[in-house]
Formats: sequence, C-alpha cells, structure tokens
Amino acid sequence: MSLFLVSANKSFDGWHKQYTHESKVLNCSMRFAIYLPPQAASHKVPVLYWLSGLTCTDENFMQKAGAQRLAAKLGIAIVAPDTSPRGEGVADDPNGEYDLGLGAGFYVNATQAPWNRHYRMYDYVVNELPAIVETHFPVSDLRSIAGHSMGGHGALTIALREPERYCSASAFSPICNPVNAPWGQKAFSHYLGEDRGLWRQYDAVELMKESRLPMPVLVDQGLEDNFLSEQLKTENLAKVAADTKYPVTIRMQPGYDHSYYFIASFIEDHLRFHARHLSEQ
Amino acid sequence: MSLFLVSANKSFDGWHKQYTHESKVLNCSMRFAIYLPPQAASHKVPVLYWLSGLTCTDENFMQKAGAQRLAAKLGIAIVAPDTSPRGEGVADDPNGEYDLGLGAGFYVNATQAPWNRHYRMYDYVVNELPAIVETHFPVSDLRSIAGHSMGGHGALTIALREPERYCSASAFSPICNPVNAPWGQKAFSHYLGEDRGLWRQYDAVELMKESRLPMPVLVDQGLEDNFLSEQLKTENLAKVAADTKYPVTIRMQPGYDHSYYFIASFIEDHLRFHARHLSEQ
Repeated sequence: MSLFLVSANKSFDGWHKQYTHESKVLNCSMRFAIYLPPQAASHKVPVLYWLSGLTCTDENFMQKAGAQRLAAKLGIAIVAPDTSPRGEGVADDPNGEYDLGLGAGFYVNATQAPWNRHYRMYDYVVNELPAIVETHFPVSDLRSIAGHSMGGHGALTIALREPERYCSASAFSPICNPVNAPWGQKAFSHYLGEDRGLWRQYDAVELMKESRLPMPVLVDQGLEDNFLSEQLKTENLAKVAADTKYPVTIRMQPGYDHSYYFIASFIEDHLRFHARHLSEQ
Repeated sequence: MSLFLVSANKSFDGWHKQYTHESKVLNCSMRFAIYLPPQAASHKVPVLYWLSGLTCTDENFMQKAGAQRLAAKLGIAIVAPDTSPRGEGVADDPNGEYDLGLGAGFYVNATQAPWNRHYRMYDYVVNELPAIVETHFPVSDLRSIAGHSMGGHGALTIALREPERYCSASAFSPICNPVNAPWGQKAFSHYLGEDRGLWRQYDAVELMKESRLPMPVLVDQGLEDNFLSEQLKTENLAKVAADTKYPVTIRMQPGYDHSYYFIASFIEDHLRFHARHLSEQ
C-alpha cells in the first residue's frame, strides 16, 4: 500500500500533509490530509477523524477551522478524508447538483448501480483509511470522530454503529435525521434504493434508539443556520437522546450560521472534549 | 457614501462582515471584509488593516489565518481590503499572469496608462478605506497595519511613509526590496514607468534608509519559503534596519513556507504585538 505525498506545510511546529493513495474499497485514487502535531515526532498520538460536508474536500477543514493550534498543544493528530470517491468513471449526479455524487458521498456503502461501484465511504472511513493511517504514521489506535453537516451525520452514525472503534464523537450542524430530510432522502434513495430499513442504518436518530454502547457525544448547532429546520432536525436528536438517556450534549448557539466561521468559533471546545476522552482510555 | 452588506457571519461572539462600496479613488466597486470583535458592541475599538498577497481577495485572511479568536479577546477590529481594483473595464495583465493587474495592485498609485485609471491602491488603503471604516463602524482612529507577501510589502511601505497614521506594522514573508526583485520590477515598470526614483517610494528597504519617525515593526519569514531568495530579499531589510537602527524584529522561522499555514502559526504573536502598541497610544 503506497502513499504519495502531495504537499507538506509546517504548521504550529507540526506538519500538515496531503497524500494520495489507491483505495481498494472505493476503487479509485483518493486524497486525504493529516495534521501531525509536534508530539508525533517522539511518540504515538491519538487521531481525530474529521468528516466534511457537502462540496468539501480534505482542504476545507484544514484551511478554515483553525484546529491545528490546539491539536498541537493537545498532541492530537487530525485526519481529513475527502467527501466522496473521485476521478474518471466515478458516477455523479446526472443533473450536476451538489447534493449527490461527487462531494456528496454521505458516508454510506451504496448498494444501487451505478453508485455501488465506488461509493463505499462508510467502509473507507471506518476501516481502510484508519488502517492506512495507523500503518504509515506515528499514531496510536485511539480514535475519535467529528464532522460538519453531512460529515456530522457521518461522524454520529459511524460512532453509533462502531462504538468499540472510537472514544468520542462530535458534530457541528449535523444532518441528524436524514431519513426525514430532503438531502438525506435524495441521497439515500439513489445510493441505497427504496429499502427504508437500510436507510435507518445511516440515520443518527434511528441508530440512537437502539444504541448498545453509548459514548460521549458533543453537538454544536447554530440557531441562525439556514438549514436547521428543513435539513438538520437537531430537535429530533435531542428528543431521542432524552428518551434513551444517551450522553449527548447539544448546544444551540444563538446567532451562528452553517459556515466555517461557526466551526472555528467552537472547535477548541470539541478538541478539548475529544482530548479528554482519548486520554481516559 | 453607501455600504452594501454582502455577508455576515457570527465569529467568536463578534461579526465577520463583507461590504461593497463605490470607490472614488479606484473608480470602481470594491469589496472589503471587517471583523468586529464583541467589544465593538459597547465601545470604539482600534483597527488592524490586513493587506493580502498576490491573487488574494478580502477572503483569504479572514478564512484561513485564524485571527478572529485572538482579535475577539484583545478587542481589535480587522479590516481586509481586496488586492486590486476589480470589475469591467479594469485593466489586467495582457498575458493573464497572476503578478500584474487583477489581484496584484501592489499597493501603489499607478502613473502609467492604462493602469492609472483604476490602480491607486495606496490612496485607497491609506485614505479612502479608513475614512469609510471610521465613519460606518464603532472603531477609533488608532490603526495598525499588517500583510503577507505583496501585502507585507504594502504594510511596510505604507507604515514607513505614513508613520503618523499607524501605531505599529507587521508582515509575514514581505517583498522587502521589490525594486531588486522580478515581481516588483515587472509591476513597477507597468504601474510606475521607468522612473526609478518613483519606484523607491514603494520599496521598504529604500524607504527605511530615510525614515523620519520609526515605529515598531515585526516581520516573520519562513526559511523554507520558495520565494525567499529571489523575490522577498529579507536580508536586505535586515541590513538596512541594522544600519539605521530601525526598530524591526525579524524572525526567520525554520521549516515554514509561504502559505497561510505559516501565517496561522504566528498570527497570535502579531495580534499581541499590535494590541500592545495600539494600547500605548
């Protein structure tokens, strides 16, 4: 398994690097970014996986969230995958819309043609990418997972389904209940077909109802987020968390929107939250 | 004088906003960004002007530098203008290169056709924009100025020529001696013609030789910056500063490059430096 270095930038005395590799799971070449804090020069550090939202690549979070400052202090690596398979032959939305296909993998394993040839982002994020990262970099197998919007959906659903693999999960503006929201319904009907039972395996609200091993979860949601009521449905997550006593902290932040300005404003809290739970292992 | 709000994002309990306005100096519509820290809700705050580098707009610094966190703590507004005039009829490099014309105003007042119709970024940054900002926002007339690369050149030259107007200046990776570097020579020959006496009025090394009212200056330069030896010539600035005993601190940072990852790594030091000098007035 070979990695090809695309770029390297020193950052807060650590390193931001981009790599490409051939993904067997996704059946295409993929790029990801890793931030290695200075502590990684002397010992293995834990890893926070960051899943980005619709239209993003590995670059949005690394350039805009301001996360490296505190990751460097706390000694946490951050890995940011792309948001979908890419490249020639990878299916895209026939109408060219941003919410399906390229940049919109929704962190599911597609079962429907033509998507099932490449769109297996769930397996990529959960299995293939951590195996690569843990082979090639000075990191431990202590993992946490976080994300934004579609990536917040990814982080929550993966954490709920794979509680043994992660110490904690957090999300900004997550799509909490995609089976009841237009973005989710469009993506799931294409990727997963009409079997709603399968859809529920990728829905944080549905998964939380049957959670077997709760983990600490932090959610931040801006109250001025234009997508809140139609697409994100945070209130449904709050309700099921209350019903099941799941250990989620949901913070509704007045005045904040869906942008990276919001993420940057609260990323410190998320990094400290993950650092605490990664160090408790 | 009217401002039109383009966007507003809550950020660290303050506000990032973009505005457009008709610039009389530049003879076109211009966009700028302002970060207003939470303190601006109750009293006037000082302003740091940030000048960006080649190809940038007002957005690069606001999205990538991670400056709002500390600006919000220190109570400093940040204003980021665009890097050139824009719009229909504004001259551009006939060869479409990135280092002349749009995105490459070099913070000079052009004297040569066709550039002299719009390219008067020096007057825009020094006079017109501060007058607008100080009329429309809760800011004081205490100003500092900073920038990156071409914008570092702008910040240093403006500070050296207008010491009464600024409390302090700083730069990341500035073009220190453009009259002796390819970027500067190309831009100045187009904007200013062949009068090298005029060129020297826009060259930090030349201006420092004749400085009448020194101000505190901080410069950070990455030692792995690909542009260092050919375009930036930091050593010429260090030499003239030593000769004239100008109060510049120049820090050569091992391993860092020309990117915003470098800026983000040290922006805290620059903001604290400016806050100290803004509060001493």
